Formats: sequence, C-alpha cells, structure tokens
Amino acid sequence: MPEFRKDPLLGRWVIVARERGERPASLRFENSEEPLAPADDPFSEGNERFTPSEVYALRSAGSVPNGPGWQLRVVPNRYPALRVEGELDPASYGLYDRMNGVGAHEVVIETPDSKLAFADFSLSQISRVLEAYRQRIDDLYRDIRLAHVLVFKNHGREAGATQQYSHSQIIATPMLPLRLREELNSCLQHWRLKRRSLFMDILSEELRMRERLVFENEHVVAFCPYAGYSPFEVMLIPRVQSADFRKASPAQLEAVAEALKTVLAMWRSALGDGAWNFMLHTAPNAASLAAPEEEFPGYESFFCWHLEMFPRLTTSAGFEWGTGMHINPVPPEEAAAALRAAEVAV
Amino acid sequence: MPEFRKDPLLGRWVIVARERGERPASLRFENSEEPLAPADDPFSEGNERFTPSEVYALRSAGSVPNGPGWQLRVVPNRYPALRVEGELDPASYGLYDRMNGVGAHEVVIETPDSKLAFADFSLSQISRVLEAYRQRIDDLYRDIRLAHVLVFKNHGREAGATQQYSHSQIIATPMLPLRLREELNSCLQHWRLKRRSLFMDILSEELRMRERLVFENEHVVAFCPYAGYSPFEVMLIPRVQSADFRKASPAQLEAVAEALKTVLAMWRSALGDGAWNFMLHTAPNAASLAAPEEEFPGYESFFCWHLEMFPRLTTSAGFEWGTGMHINPVPPEEAAAALRAAEVAV
Repeated sequence: MPEFRKDPLLGRWVIVARERGERPASLRFENSEEPLAPADDPFSEGNERFTPSEVYALRSAGSVPNGPGWQLRVVPNRYPALRVEGELDPASYGLYDRMNGVGAHEVVIETPDSKLAFADFSLSQISRVLEAYRQRIDDLYRDIRLAHVLVFKNHGREAGATQQYSHSQIIATPMLPLRLREELNSCLQHWRLKRRSLFMDILSEELRMRERLVFENEHVVAFCPYAGYSPFEVMLIPRVQSADFRKASPAQLEAVAEALKTVLAMWRSALGDGAWNFMLHTAPNAASLAAPEEEFPGYESFFCWHLEMFPRLTTSAGFEWGTGMHINPVPPEEAAAALRAAEVAV
Repeated sequence: MPEFRKDPLLGRWVIVARERGERPASLRFENSEEPLAPADDPFSEGNERFTPSEVYALRSAGSVPNGPGWQLRVVPNRYPALRVEGELDPASYGLYDRMNGVGAHEVVIETPDSKLAFADFSLSQISRVLEAYRQRIDDLYRDIRLAHVLVFKNHGREAGATQQYSHSQIIATPMLPLRLREELNSCLQHWRLKRRSLFMDILSEELRMRERLVFENEHVVAFCPYAGYSPFEVMLIPRVQSADFRKASPAQLEAVAEALKTVLAMWRSALGDGAWNFMLHTAPNAASLAAPEEEFPGYESFFCWHLEMFPRLTTSAGFEWGTGMHINPVPPEEAAAALRAAEVAV
C-alpha cells in the first residue's frame, strides 16, 4: 500500500509508493526506454485485457467495454501512486506523521493510434480528451474522501513519460496539493483586499500589456506568465471567471483544444520537437471531507481553472532544489514574441 | 541585468536572467554537451585568464593570483544568475512586482585535475572544498544586502551540470529562499511548542530507530529522511545543534568530508555511476537587511546547518510540478539498508 509521509522540515506530504517488480527501475541509474511493439503495448487496441477495466470510454456502436472499437479509454493505472481502496488512517510514527496512500490514479489512453503524437491530434480529438478529463473529475468528485483531482500530461522522457504511446494521467488526492493551496491562498488574500478574482486581474493585465500574449480566441487566452519559472512556459485561462473545469461548455472545450494545439505547434516551430508537460488546475471538491470552503471561503468566486504548460528546456539543479526558486533564462516577453512569430496552421 | 519577478499566484520570486550569446541554449530543445578539451576549458590550470578574478584560492608558495599553481579557486560566474553590482530598487510593473537581480554567483573550481571526479577526491581535498565554502559564506555575509548563501553542486547532465569539470556553485540572494524559510518556520513552531531544536529531535529519532541510518562518525550523521522526496536521498547533519556552517571546526569539516565521500561511494556501489546534487543549508545572514532574527527570533538555537544530497534517479513530471508533491518509489528504510549493505572503502 502506498503511503503519505509528512516532511517535518518542509511541512509537506510526500507519497512513498514502492515500485513493483524484482528490481525497481529507480534502483539503478540506467534507464531503459525501448518503445513497445504495438502487440506488446498494453495501451494498444486489442490489448485491453492488459489494463484494469475501463472507467470511461468513447466507443463505436456495437463495441463492448474492455474490447476493441474505442476512440479513447480511461483505465486505472496498473502501477498506481495512490489507491482507491481503504481509509486514510492517519497515525504517528515516532516523531513523524503518516497516512495510507488513498486516492486515485488513472490513465487516459487518448487514441487507438499508437504512433500519433498529441500535437498531431485533430481539434475534435483534443476536445474529446478534454471532455474525458471533465467527466472523470466529475465522477471522482463523488468520492468525498477526494479533495482534488490533478490532470496532467507528460510528453517525452525528459518530461517524465515512461511510455511513448500518447496518454495523460489523473491523480486524485485526499488533501489539497501544496501548489493549489498556494494559488487558493493568493486568490483569497487578493479577494479580501479587492473583491476581485486575481486570475481575472492577471488576464486583464495581460490583455492590456499584450507583450506576453501568445494566442487568444473567443473563450480562452494563452500567455507567458510574467514570472514564469520555465522558459516558454504558457498559461491558458478562460476569459470569464470560472473555478470549476467541470462546468466548461463544449464551446469552451473546443476553444481550449484550439489554444492547446496552437501552442504546441508554436513550440514545435520555435523550439523543435521535444518533451513537455501540461497540468490542469481546477477547483477542489467542495463536497469532500477536506472542506475547502472552510479554508478558502467563497473560492468559487475567485479561483479560476487553468492549464499550465511548459517545454522541458532546463533542468532543475541544486539551486532550484535548495531554494525553491527558479531561474528562467528567457524573459517571458521574448518567449511570447518568438511564439507569436512562429508560423503555424492549426 | 538579471531581475527578480514575483509570481502573483504562488507568491514566490523567480530569477529572470537572460542567457548570453546570440542564440540561448534554451531556445532550442537540442542540448549539445561536448566535454571541453583542457586547452579550451576556462577551469583548467593555465587558463585563469578566461575566468573573472579569483575571490578565494589555495595556492602553492610562490604562485600568483589568477595564474597557475593552485589547488582550488573560487571565481565569480561568467554568466551569473545574480550580480553584485547595484541596488534592488523594488518596483511595481503594472499588477506585478519586480526587483533588480542583486546577489552573488560564484564557482568553486575544486581541483586543477580536469579529469578527477568529486567522488574520487581524497578526504583532505574534500575538506579543502568545504573550507572554501565556509570562507566564502563568511565573506559574502559581510554584505548586508545578502540574506542567505546557498552552496550547491550539480554533478552530471541530469543534475543540471553544464560542465564536466568538477565544480560547485555559490549563490547569495537578498531574500531568504522559500525552502530555507519553510525550514526556519517549521523549526520556529517546534521551538515555540517544545523549546527544542527540530533538527536535533529528528537526529535523536533517527539514532533511536536506526532503520534509516546510512553512516555516522564522531561529528556527523547521515540518514535517508523519513519523507524524502527522492529515492536514496540522504541528509547529513552535525551531532550537536549548530545553525551556522561558518562555525564548523576543522574536525567537523573532516567528518563531513568523510560522510560525504562515504555516501557517494555507497551510491556508486548500489546504483552505479550517475548524476547527483547536494545543497548546503546554513543560517541566514543575521546582519543583513532582511533581518531574519525579526522573523525567526532565536533561530541560532533551533535551526541547524545540514547537507541535502540526492541521486537523479527520477524525473519531476506533471504531477510534481502541478501539485508540489513528490512520489518517492523507494521507501527510505529500504534505500538506507541498500546503502549500508554497500561495501565501500573510503
């Protein structure tokens, strides 16, 4: 069973989840990453028996669950960092604090085409992936043990991907993650001072200054954040304050798909092909035992869902680990200008 | 001029430091890392003219500053993330906050032997490196603009090293870095509750439980932290409460050198050769304008200098970036047992 352990010095939870297998990969420096032959790939169509039973799927008429004939599947991770079974059972361990690793860890198999890269998906394929995220968050938020769901995508080995097959991941945690809590806290302080959404204030500022804008359409705006931690980092937020990604309309999801595909095409044009991550932050589970409304009263009015995405151009080194401070070698204004100048057709 | 920019959502400072050169390395995904020929390497003996003037050196009798004949040199970084010139000049920029990138960024050239890896240094060589750290922190703390000095080492490309030549880095910042502030804060809360040093309580617990111990000698103890964020992470702390690394005695530095070399040998034996980082946390500059004593009164009694070190076995992926939470696939007890079992001769 995975467990949560609290770091007494940094005051944060760490997940200790033992790898399966005789010799865990992280017991050696060598890192084998052979692409799997489609016949051996558990994500491939026809190999559904190698994954746990699907919890969501888009299927052709007449196909049956956990068989072929799908456009997209969501399945529990075979090697989950957190598990849905059981209770947290918080306990002390000598001086320390621990809890069982309760949560959820799912994989979104985004396409039956094992060779197709996410950046080459059609807009409607990307929209379907986003709709799957929406549905899964909605389903997971029915579990009152789960305080938050993070959806993220690791593309390429430097971004932490262990499989080449295009997929994303969903991890639900019983506590609010530190980053989300920091964002909620900044937004709460801003709200108390100004009665305004910090996200919408940032959006107004970016639309006024324009120098960090990357892309905009009717529903969403993409820009390089003023104090981005990573070169060419992009934030994507809706034009209208909305805390909960579950409430995104089909038109909004299509707009996000267009922005996402455009930014990926801009990166490719400006930087070449490489590894990248995106992370979707949405409102916590109001119905959960973590009771986020008590800690951040009114967050529906001032927190806003958003997508953070960055190409893996730099490596976190001793300075970043030792200080928590990042060095960004490309001013966001210059990154945005380079991206705007990229010729892309989406 | 580099600048500090404050992230309004996470409330933290980011350093924006434009890379020099026509085309910054981080403007493309490709990463060339050819080892330099000794004749071209600015760190090599005989090439002292390629570095800024040394601020500290261990030299043979009769040698002159910035010439050959040294055992160790400390020089300002040619491409500094922060610069010693000027004032912070904090200012708003629309909604945002910025300051000039004032600070210091130095490089410790640890050996005149361009091929020698740190893990193969003699104990007295490592002691000399540690003594250089001590001296540089002491000198930098005479500048009241500097609140803290972080010393760190990146070994190998995955650890963020851009040069193979054995070196470490020193970065002084005008504010307390987030990680140090988190540690100071945890220690302050613990002190207020219990009037004890949290570091010394952790040390007692580790010495009592023993399952995470890796190495101990007369002056220092090395162990895998209970909630380590990274597999095979090791923390090294002195046996006796001491906030300030500048006060470490020659005997303590020798003991740290022995522990450091032993852990590196254990990693090599258990994991093979690979990339790793270490970071030295020491007390903030009491005399600085940041006035750490006001924020953390009495920290000399409850903060303790320590060395954090970890091999680069895992990659921070979307989950870690999106949550600030880490997944450690090797329970620290198992990592410690594997390291203790490694046969090493130091």
